[in-house]
This record gives sequence, C-alpha cells and structure tokens, in this order.
Amino acid sequence: MSDVERPALVASEARGLLRMLRTGPPRTRAQLAELTGLARSTVAARLDGLINSGLVIPAGDELSSGGRPPALLAFNPSARVVLAVDLGATHGVVALTDLAGDILRIESAEITIAAGPEPVLDWVVSAARRVLRASGRARRDLIGIGVGLPGPVEHSSGRPINPPIMPGWNRFDVPGCLRRHFDVPVLVDNDVNILALGEHAVSWPNETDLVFVKVSTGIGAGIISGGRLQRGAQGSAGDLGHVRVPFTARTPQHGAVDADLEALASGPAIAAWMSAHGAPARTSQDVLEAGLRCDPVAVQGIRQAGRDLGEVLATVVNLLNPSIVVIGGSVARSGEHLLAGIREVVYGQSTPLATQTLSIVHSQAGTTGGVLGAAIMVIQRVLDEPAP
Amino acid sequence: MSDVERPALVASEARGLLRMLRTGPPRTRAQLAELTGLARSTVAARLDGLINSGLVIPAGDELSSGGRPPALLAFNPSARVVLAVDLGATHGVVALTDLAGDILRIESAEITIAAGPEPVLDWVVSAARRVLRASGRARRDLIGIGVGLPGPVEHSSGRPINPPIMPGWNRFDVPGCLRRHFDVPVLVDNDVNILALGEHAVSWPNETDLVFVKVSTGIGAGIISGGRLQRGAQGSAGDLGHVRVPFTARTPQHGAVDADLEALASGPAIAAWMSAHGAPARTSQDVLEAGLRCDPVAVQGIRQAGRDLGEVLATVVNLLNPSIVVIGGSVARSGEHLLAGIREVVYGQSTPLATQTLSIVHSQAGTTGGVLGAAIMVIQRVLDEPAP
Repeated sequence: MSDVERPALVASEARGLLRMLRTGPPRTRAQLAELTGLARSTVAARLDGLINSGLVIPAGDELSSGGRPPALLAFNPSARVVLAVDLGATHGVVALTDLAGDILRIESAEITIAAGPEPVLDWVVSAARRVLRASGRARRDLIGIGVGLPGPVEHSSGRPINPPIMPGWNRFDVPGCLRRHFDVPVLVDNDVNILALGEHAVSWPNETDLVFVKVSTGIGAGIISGGRLQRGAQGSAGDLGHVRVPFTARTPQHGAVDADLEALASGPAIAAWMSAHGAPARTSQDVLEAGLRCDPVAVQGIRQAGRDLGEVLATVVNLLNPSIVVIGGSVARSGEHLLAGIREVVYGQSTPLATQTLSIVHSQAGTTGGVLGAAIMVIQRVLDEPAP
Repeated sequence: MSDVERPALVASEARGLLRMLRTGPPRTRAQLAELTGLARSTVAARLDGLINSGLVIPAGDELSSGGRPPALLAFNPSARVVLAVDLGATHGVVALTDLAGDILRIESAEITIAAGPEPVLDWVVSAARRVLRASGRARRDLIGIGVGLPGPVEHSSGRPINPPIMPGWNRFDVPGCLRRHFDVPVLVDNDVNILALGEHAVSWPNETDLVFVKVSTGIGAGIISGGRLQRGAQGSAGDLGHVRVPFTARTPQHGAVDADLEALASGPAIAAWMSAHGAPARTSQDVLEAGLRCDPVAVQGIRQAGRDLGEVLATVVNLLNPSIVVIGGSVARSGEHLLAGIREVVYGQSTPLATQTLSIVHSQAGTTGGVLGAAIMVIQRVLDEPAP
C-alpha cells in the first residue's frame, strides 16, 4: 500500500485541534471549543478520532471548586513511533523516536556509503528491527521513516540525484526499498536540510527565518523561511558550495582565481592549503584535529575559510534576512576560528537592517542532530501538513 | 477600531470552504461536505456565515436528471472591494479592485514622493474617495487598503525605515494616517515585494518558487518560496542592491573596484558609464530610451549590467532554486539587452540541477502590476491567512 492510498492517521480537519494540544497545555473540551470557535459537537467528533488513534488521552483533572471536575485532554507523544535514519559518508545512525521527537532507542555504526545502497540499507533495516524490538514497540506503531543522505535528493521521489560521494545510489528508489520491509511512508532528504529541521525544532523553535550551514567535506545550507524548510522548485535549494566567491575575499595566498566556495572553504580545501604551508593534512577530520590543538597554520587556514564563507553568507543575509545563522559540520567544531572569520565579514558587509538582530552561532544539536531532524520531517508530514 | 479588535470578515474555520469556492467551480452543499469530509451541519453553519457576508452566493443550478436540482454555491468576488495604492518616486496609482483582484476603477497622477507623507497621502485619500464614488461602492464595502512604497518598510508596523529617496517618511505611521480616513486594515510593503505578489498571482500562480527582480533607480528582489512571499526576520529580505559582485564579472571598463550591485547595474550606474563613454545619460529613463533606440553605447552598458546582475542571480538561483526569475523595472523594459546579459551568466554558472527547468523572463504585469500586488496582499490577509 503506498502512502497515497493509506488513510491519514489524523484527518485534515482534526489537525488544528491536535496542534493546539501538541503545543499547549492539556485542555478541557469546553476550552477547546472556546479557543477554536468550533461547535461542541464538532470538537467532540474530532476528538473521537484523535482519542481512538491514541494520539489524545485523558490528562490529570483540572482543579475545580466543587462537583465533578471537567476532564482534561492531552497529546500523547508515545502513541506512535518514528524511525529516523542519518547516513553519512562513513557513519550511520538509526533511532526510534516518539511523536515529540524524543529518542527512545538509538544504534550507530561505521558504514561505507560508497559501497552502494544494498549493503547500507540492509544495515538500516536490521538496525531498525533491533531498535523496534529493544524498545518493545510493535511494527504497527510505526508511522513513518525519515532518512537523511549525504548528497542531493529529489525529495518528491526520495531518490538521490548524481550524489558525488555515493556511487551506485544515483536515482535509487530508497523509499521503495525500505517499504518492502516497513509498510509506512518513507521521506528522504539531504543531510543539510535534515540538520536544519533538527536545529530549528530543538534550539530555535520560535524563529521563523534560520539558515543552517554545514562546513565539512562539502558545503551546503538548509533554509528555513517563514517557519518552513524551503527546498525550491526541484529540491536543490541551499547549494552554497557551488557559489562563486567575490574576489575581494581572496587573500594573496589564494590568488585571483575563479573559484567556488567549496574549492576555498571546505575541509579538503583547507587541508590542501595547510599542506602547502607546512602543516600536512588531508581530510576535514585532520583540519578539525589541528584546529582543536590550535595549530597556527590550521587556525590561519580555518579563519580565512570563515572569511570566504562570510562573503557568501553576507549575500545570503541580505537576500533572506534570517535572524539566526547556524554553523555546523566538522570544520565548525574546531573552535571559534571559523565563526570568527564569518562574523568579521558578515557584520562588516551586510546591511544594518539585516544584521541588527542577527545571531551567528554554532550548531547545538551534536551527533544526534541528523536523526532528530529526520524524525521531525516525518512528524511534520504526518501530523501537521494537509493530508494528501 | 484597530484591525486586531475588528471581527474577522471570514471566521478562521470557514476559510477552507471559501478557498475551495474561490479556486474551484461552483459546488453544492453535498459536494462541499464530501470534498472536505465535514459534517453537513458543519458545512451549513460555515456557509451561513459566508452567505450572510455576501462572499458566497447561489450560482446557476446544476443540471439534474429530474426533480428539484440541488443549489450551486459560488464565490462572489464583488461582495467587497479593496483599495490598492502604488507609490513610486514620481508616480502614484490608486485603484479599487474586487476580491479577485480585478480593477474596477483606477486613477494615476504625477506625484513627488520626496515632498513627504502629508501631501502624498492627501492625494491618496482624495483619489481613493473618487474611485469609490465613481464605482458606486459604499465605504463599508471596503475590506482593506494595500500600499506599496519605493523604499524599505517594516511590514509589521507599516512604517518606512530610512527610505533613501523618501525624505520625511522615516518611521511615519502610514497605516495610522490612512485609518483616520478609512477604518479598515492597512498593509504596507516595499514596491518590489508588491510587484512579486502581483506577478506571481497573475502570470505564474502554479509556481511555488519565484524571484522577482526590479532594476531601476535601485535594485531589489521579491522572493516567493514555498508559494509564499518571504520577508525575512525584519522584513528586509530581497536586498539585492547591496550585494557585492564577484570580481570576475568586472570588465576592464569597471576596474577591480569593490562595488555593490546597485553601483554597477542600476539605471543611474549605467547612465554614468554611458556618459563616460560618449553617450550622455542621467536617469533610468534616459537609459531606457537609449536602449529602446538601440544606441550602441547603451546596449553595451545595459548588457554588461545584465552580466553583473547575472553574477548575483547565479548565487540566488543556487541558493533558492526558483523555477522562474522575473525581471522588471525601467531598465528591463529597454528590450532584450538586460536579459541577454543575465541569461549568459546564470545559465553558465548555476548548477545544472538548479537551471534545468529555470526560466528567466520579462515582467508581464505592466504599469498596473503594483496596484494588483497591493490588492492581492490585502485579499490574502483577509481571506486566506489565519485570523488574528
């Protein structure tokens, strides 16, 4: 059964009531009728569906001055579970979360994404079975699977599109493959969009305009505008890595070459520059480690990468006027060097109206940011968005 | 009475039904109940409110094979009117539209925005009274006023913020001033956002991701992502004019200076370049006229401005992945020169995934694009968005 044929877990017209209970305190039926302006009979009918599915349950009773206290109703995040999958070049994480995005069970492993979809997804399926079993949840409790991949993904079909570091995955039907084992909707997106969703939901839920930038082997952005992740017309929004960098960012060591941001500021680019300046390095991880021990060549290279990033982010800030720019990825974890370079340029170059309340901060989400975002993608689709 | 205290014209819960009738064919009550999944009693209650307000009326009856045919209901765009105001540096347009955004009556005049808010808004109020009177509509039929201004606007308060060509307007309470004459909600935004809304609604209603760029005395963009105009955290999104241009765009005549886009590609910048190359010009209008008669210096200057714009738009396309980039403003009306330069660079530089279905086109909206967008801003707020 495809997810189009499957009846929606929550009827479209009940989503407003459910959202009120998910984001606010427990309420009585009378309060819900008053707050929504709906007829009591309408509220009752919609709550019946939500209570039958277990999504809404009685909560502790409201204090009352006498007589039988009115029953309070609350959202029940344990009613169902979500499978969240975060795949990188060399790591994989599979987690089971509840409907609030809280992790119930998690398993991670070293994987080789370049080995192709079959062995990687075989591991995903077996890890998924293990986290389900270990948490004592039945397969019928599963409402969906969210997957983050380290490359471009056509979100509408869930297929990777020419992913550079994922040989064998081009146009592979990831949802179809996983649905052969778990008959639920499968949503797939690139890792940066997933991280943006996770960072927004966990650390900045009240901000409507946030840009998440990952600086690692590649460079990409996840864009939240008007409170929603924006994927663009073909799902390729956020491709910062292939933006050309203004000449004025270029210091003498780079020369006046025509270069895109990834060629200047990614982990491998910084490593190459370090190697040419007496501090051999090859990968983003090497750069991270050298930065953490404050190797002076690494610090200089990372800070200049921050300035180059800042040149592009100054444009992003003028264009999108976010209130938060979050910097993540391995290069960002090397201390304050990268952010210092970014801030130097962005605050110097963007217009005052765009920067007056702008914060440029480190990612808070840590290593579970990916699975968190993948879970939130599924929860939003199943509980929030209009049913198909 | 402020618009917060005013009862909403359309109750929140009735907006779904109204949207169905606005965007689709006339329907019977039974069809509406079936399409929405709502109880017939709920549909009846919501339709009562919509019929009482005149927004929904009986339409021609559906063909029936016998017996009394079921009554069809339709959206009635004539039920109310909107006042739409488009103010530029030297022109003003005031229009009365119906709820479909169709213009019922229009008046335009030469104005001097730099004369300050009082004389300009005095003209707006008197022109508004004339178009209301001439169209035979009562003041109580007015549901709101939309205003476009040629400078930065804090959309939440409707106040211009340090507008460069509008002396005396800084932080002026435009909504408060107009509400003294017409007691309805007043929404104000900058002209580029208004033009983006108009262009999207009229020419590209099915595209979710569109960027409108105005190239005139200044340069700015209106961004529609995920089907909605994105204003950013402080409402300054779309500030293309202050983005720095990559060095590689610079031809020898510009030199390797550090310049923002407006200093290279606006009407006055092109005019200055033309003057330095033997074709005296001063304003965007001079550039437009020289371009239209294919003056070779003008053609060269406009085409190079297009390439500079293209450098910045290549970044915009990688970042936002729009399906349509619309180019408007006086410089764009000078023929194909500007778009030729833009296309040359954008198609050469943006990534294939972002450009494979990208169209770069001229604005279609013409001189009424501003009032159209202003009307649509009001209609969306009053009929579509959640009530305050």
